[in-house]
Amino acid sequence: MANSSKKIREIGEDLLIKRITKNLPLGKDVVAGAGDDCAVITSNDPQSYVLLKIDCVIEEIHYMKSTPPSAVGYKALSRAISDIAAMGGTPKHAMISLSLRPECNVSYVNSLYHGLSKASSPYNISIVGGETASCGENGTPSVTVSLTGQVRKDRCCFRSKGKSGHILFVTGKLGKSLNGHHLRFTPRIEEAQWLTKKFKLSAMMDLSDGLASDLPRLAKSSNCGYSIEKNQIPRTRGASIQEALCDGEDYELLFAISSKDCNKLEVAWQKKFPSLTLTRIGKLSPKGNANPDLKGGWKHF
Amino acid sequence: MANSSKKIREIGEDLLIKRITKNLPLGKDVVAGAGDDCAVITSNDPQSYVLLKIDCVIEEIHYMKSTPPSAVGYKALSRAISDIAAMGGTPKHAMISLSLRPECNVSYVNSLYHGLSKASSPYNISIVGGETASCGENGTPSVTVSLTGQVRKDRCCFRSKGKSGHILFVTGKLGKSLNGHHLRFTPRIEEAQWLTKKFKLSAMMDLSDGLASDLPRLAKSSNCGYSIEKNQIPRTRGASIQEALCDGEDYELLFAISSKDCNKLEVAWQKKFPSLTLTRIGKLSPKGNANPDLKGGWKHF
Repeated sequence: MANSSKKIREIGEDLLIKRITKNLPLGKDVVAGAGDDCAVITSNDPQSYVLLKIDCVIEEIHYMKSTPPSAVGYKALSRAISDIAAMGGTPKHAMISLSLRPECNVSYVNSLYHGLSKASSPYNISIVGGETASCGENGTPSVTVSLTGQVRKDRCCFRSKGKSGHILFVTGKLGKSLNGHHLRFTPRIEEAQWLTKKFKLSAMMDLSDGLASDLPRLAKSSNCGYSIEKNQIPRTRGASIQEALCDGEDYELLFAISSKDCNKLEVAWQKKFPSLTLTRIGKLSPKGNANPDLKGGWKHF
Repeated sequence: MANSSKKIREIGEDLLIKRITKNLPLGKDVVAGAGDDCAVITSNDPQSYVLLKIDCVIEEIHYMKSTPPSAVGYKALSRAISDIAAMGGTPKHAMISLSLRPECNVSYVNSLYHGLSKASSPYNISIVGGETASCGENGTPSVTVSLTGQVRKDRCCFRSKGKSGHILFVTGKLGKSLNGHHLRFTPRIEEAQWLTKKFKLSAMMDLSDGLASDLPRLAKSSNCGYSIEKNQIPRTRGASIQEALCDGEDYELLFAISSKDCNKLEVAWQKKFPSLTLTRIGKLSPKGNANPDLKGGWKHF
């Protein structure tokens, strides 16, 4: 394989995952494998799908050695909850794998689990398993979360079903997440469930790597292009347009909906969630269009 | 909390997990949470349980930088499969979280996924999701696997239901796993499914940390003691009794069964699995007995 001698950072995470997962055999019960916010599996219940997610946070990458451990735990689980939200689902069971230095204090782990509990309790998520392993004296600690969820089939929302002409919305405000939002955000479970219950969205995802990375992903997955008004992007106080596009870790929802439903949506949203902004930022367009051509966002490698 | 200032390595993994998980609220659908080989959850199917597992392998701890990446992938997934086997279950869906250095070659990841596929294909496991994250230039790479499974309720085998007087068996031979077995072992899915279909086992687990660690865990979980004949322990060629007890990474099955079923089991096993030894090593006894008092085995911290 000509590209095999390349470094991961040269090809990036998206291409890497696409290449390594394209030949994996999937059972007939797999509705969606790698490539969406969650994997989607049929279950014994003909009305619903099972959702599966795995996600990890790594010291010095996603949090600092000085970050309070309760915030590390809260963030680790909330990120996975945000992915369940992006499918319109309800989170159910979590398992936690901790990789820690042997010198780590027990109080650190207790506090980390307090953070996990804080993230799980609003949704009655059961933390059903934990394992801990040593990363060695000089190793890099990390917290990996696997999370299951459930979603009614008729409300399950994929990245890949967006349609050209559909209007793009984002919840909340974007940018400057590192000022604290990335440790304290509320996953948009309630909002996503309300949206998928009341409206027919064509595509949805959560914004984790920044709109500049994530919108092109949603569009590509839906075989569409996009056009947005940069100055329409809702910005956190003090954030530049560039920061709103590229900082990442917003954990807000990006979704597409038919233009005929937009006014009704905006009125109903304002009534239901008066303190959370909902903003039209543009629309999906025919494949090949990218206006403006977005670059940047969080690069994993 | 008086013990909170202690280091993890001072209290060990078992006590750590017990302490951090004891206060976690669990939903009514959780049959078994942390503490068994897998978590056990009720499903929409009244005949079966869902099994959930998370497990990670870390460079320089569970494998070396020089270990062929296909062997790393094979081992990472096979360990989790072994835990599904320990419950009598069938593995179903896997998700993989890779933490890698940005300098890692794409060919390394391809090869790692070949190993994952090699582990998954005999059981038709669908690898439904993958994520990759950078552990940084000087970080410690790791591979975390989450795996779901399914088991018929009447065949689900816990660690905790062992009975005093029941006879203890182990499959295969123990010790010297680092000579290569730890990278090439076959999870005992077929054997465990046959055992739980044909016989009523009272308790089962897989041997990952060594009999000296794992047998006391099974006994304690079942509120029993144990007595074994050290010289009855089946040993890999060249392994001492001490190595068979403590090396770990055997990935064989340890189980307990009523003495009245033993002869029938041994005859039927010999016919079904003529090339895999099955050995009586002792029995469960009333709580408080430990003969001999086993120490050692793999210490995670």
